[in-house]
Amino acid sequence: MKQKDEIDFSSGLSCPIPKSDYEHVLLAHGGGGTLSHQLISKLFFSQFDNEFLNEQHDSAILPLLSLRQAGFNVDKSKLAFTTDSYVVQPIFFPGGNIGELAVNGTVNDLVVAGAKPVYISVGFIIEEGLLIEDLWKIVLSMKEAARKSGVKIVTGDTKVVDKGKGDKIFINTSGIGVIKEGINISPKRCKPGDKIILSGRIADHGIAIMSAREGLEFETAIVSDTAPLIDLLDCIEKFGDKIHVMRDPTRGGLASSLNEIAEIANVGMLIDEEKISILDEVKGACEILGLDPLYIANEGKMIAIVANDIADDLLKEWRDKELGKEAEIIGEVTSENSGTVVMKTTIGSKRIVDMISGEQLPRIC
Amino acid sequence: MKQKDEIDFSSGLSCPIPKSDYEHVLLAHGGGGTLSHQLISKLFFSQFDNEFLNEQHDSAILPLLSLRQAGFNVDKSKLAFTTDSYVVQPIFFPGGNIGELAVNGTVNDLVVAGAKPVYISVGFIIEEGLLIEDLWKIVLSMKEAARKSGVKIVTGDTKVVDKGKGDKIFINTSGIGVIKEGINISPKRCKPGDKIILSGRIADHGIAIMSAREGLEFETAIVSDTAPLIDLLDCIEKFGDKIHVMRDPTRGGLASSLNEIAEIANVGMLIDEEKISILDEVKGACEILGLDPLYIANEGKMIAIVANDIADDLLKEWRDKELGKEAEIIGEVTSENSGTVVMKTTIGSKRIVDMISGEQLPRIC
Repeated sequence: MKQKDEIDFSSGLSCPIPKSDYEHVLLAHGGGGTLSHQLISKLFFSQFDNEFLNEQHDSAILPLLSLRQAGFNVDKSKLAFTTDSYVVQPIFFPGGNIGELAVNGTVNDLVVAGAKPVYISVGFIIEEGLLIEDLWKIVLSMKEAARKSGVKIVTGDTKVVDKGKGDKIFINTSGIGVIKEGINISPKRCKPGDKIILSGRIADHGIAIMSAREGLEFETAIVSDTAPLIDLLDCIEKFGDKIHVMRDPTRGGLASSLNEIAEIANVGMLIDEEKISILDEVKGACEILGLDPLYIANEGKMIAIVANDIADDLLKEWRDKELGKEAEIIGEVTSENSGTVVMKTTIGSKRIVDMISGEQLPRIC
Repeated sequence: MKQKDEIDFSSGLSCPIPKSDYEHVLLAHGGGGTLSHQLISKLFFSQFDNEFLNEQHDSAILPLLSLRQAGFNVDKSKLAFTTDSYVVQPIFFPGGNIGELAVNGTVNDLVVAGAKPVYISVGFIIEEGLLIEDLWKIVLSMKEAARKSGVKIVTGDTKVVDKGKGDKIFINTSGIGVIKEGINISPKRCKPGDKIILSGRIADHGIAIMSAREGLEFETAIVSDTAPLIDLLDCIEKFGDKIHVMRDPTRGGLASSLNEIAEIANVGMLIDEEKISILDEVKGACEILGLDPLYIANEGKMIAIVANDIADDLLKEWRDKELGKEAEIIGEVTSENSGTVVMKTTIGSKRIVDMISGEQLPRIC
C-alpha cells in the first residue's frame, strides 16, 4: 500500500523552532511561561494569523457586524455551535493527519446542520516528547484545511501532559457557523416518503486507518476521504426546508447514522445494498479484518434525507461536484419498521441493519 | 489537611448506570454504538438537559433571537468565543474537581473578555477504565457549575482512548458569550496611569493541587478557589470603556498574566508586595515546595486594569461581593520599564518580576 501521508509543503515553510533549539515538546511548553509563549507565537499565531486571533485575548471577540459584512442577514439567521475531540491513532495516516481531520470534521458538523462554518477554536493536548517537526506539519495542514473551508481559527489553547499520560497529540476543535434563513435541518424532520441520498462511496477512512495500524498492503492505496463538505452545502441551500436531515457518517459509519436518525424521528428506513458503493480494496480489507463496511467511519461523505419531490434535482446537483460525483439515492424513509433500518441485499433478501453495541474500530477520529 | 473534595450530592441522584451493568468506562463507550448512546443519554443528556442540547444534533442550533430574549441588544453586541482543555491531575482535589474547573474556567475566560457567558460545549477524552461513578460525580458538578453561572451546555462529544494513552479524563470546554455595547476589553488598552486591581488572595488553587499530589498536611485546609467570576463582571459593566483590561491569573499566576499584558501593551507595571494577599499556609507550602506564589495558578481571581478615576469606585463595588471582599489596588501601569513588571517588596527594595521560562507546576488546570 502506498502511503499517502505526505503533506504538500510546497510553501517551503520550515519549522520556526529549529531542532537545535528544541526537538521535542517539553512539559514547559504547556506551562504558561516563556516556552509556552514561544511555541504559541512561532508555530500557531504565525500560521493561523487573522485579526481575531491576533488580539491574543483569552476569548476571540467577534462583532456580529463581521457576519453582516460576510453577507449574512444576521437578524434572520441562526448560529450553529459544535465541538469534537480528535484522538485518531496514528496521527499521520494515508490521506491525511489528525490536524486536517480536526478542522474538516468540525467544519462538516456545522455543514450538516445547514450552517456555513465561520470560526473555529483549537485545543491541543500534547504528550511530552512529541516531535516539534510533527506538530509543525499538523499546524500547516490545519491552516490549509481552514483556508479550503473559509474558516478562521480565532482562539486556542495548548496543554502538555507528561509522557505516558497521552498519545502524541489530541486536538479539540469547536466551531461556530451561520445558518441562512429558510434552512431547517433536524433529525426529527425525517418523514416517511423522504429519499435518502449518500454523497459517495463508504468506509475509506476507517479502512485507511486500520490498514496503517495493521501494516496491510494493497495493490492500490486506500486513503482517507477526509474533506470539507462545503461544496455540497452550497447545493443544499436553494432547496430550503425541503432538506430535512443531513449527517456525516463518521464514527459508527452509515449504519449508525441512519439508526440514530430513525430512532430520533421514530421512522423506518429501507436502503438498497446495490446503491451503496464500496471500493473493491476496501471490501477486501473488510473481509480480512472481519469488519462490516456499513459500520466503518467516513470523513468526507454526507447523507441527506430530503422531500421526495426534490431528491432527483439534488442528486443531479451533487453529481456535478467533485465530492458528490458518485452520489446515489440509496433508499427511503418508511412508516413501517419504526426505529429500524432494513437493507435489501444484492441477493434480494432483506436484513436488519442494527446499531452495533460496541465498536469495531477504536480511535479512528 | 482536611480533604474538601466531596461534592454535595444532597440532590441524592444516584448514577443511572449501576455498577452491576458497567463499573468502568470501556473503549466501546466511545465507539459510536449502543454503549456510547447509553452513556451519553443516561449520564449527559439527563443532567445537562436543555432545549438546544435535547435536539441531539451534531451542532447546537442557537437562534440569535434567543439572545434577544435574554435581554441583549444583538445588533450592538459582540460575541466572545473561547476554548480551554483541562488536564488537571488529580481529577478530584481539595475544593473541586476537573468538571467544575472546566466549566468555571471557560466561564471566566468569557467574563474577562467582558462577556456574559451563554453557551458552552463539552468534549470528554476519557481513558478506558475510568470509574463510571467518578464520571457521574464530574457530570453532576459540571451541571451545578453551569447552573451557578447561568450557562447552558448545548453540545458535546465523548471519546475513549485505550488504557495508558490518557490519564483518567481530559475535558475541553468551549464557550460563547455576549459582550454588551460599550464594553471594550483588550490588553492593548492598558495605559500608563491605570490602576491594577486584584480581586483577592493568590495561589490557593495551585497549592491545593500540589498539596494533594505530595500528600502534604496543613493545620487548616488549603482548597482550590475555583469559582465563576460572574458577580465581579456585573460590577464592571456600568464603568463601560473605563475598564481597559481584565484577566484571570490561571496558569503562570499573577506574575505571568501581568507580564503578558505589559508586553502586549508595551507598558511597565509597578506592583506593591504588601497589597498582595497570600494565606499563611500557602506561604508555608510555597517555602516547603520551593515555589514563588506569584507564579502559582488561581481559578477564581480577577485582575482588572482600569482608568485611575474609577479605580476606587470599582474597588468598593468588588469589596461588597463575596468573591471580591479582599480586593486591593495592587499597583499601577507606568510608562517607564516598558514590557517589565517591577515589585516594591515588603522590605522596601524593588525587584523585577519576570516571565518564568519553564513552568513550576505541570497540569494544575
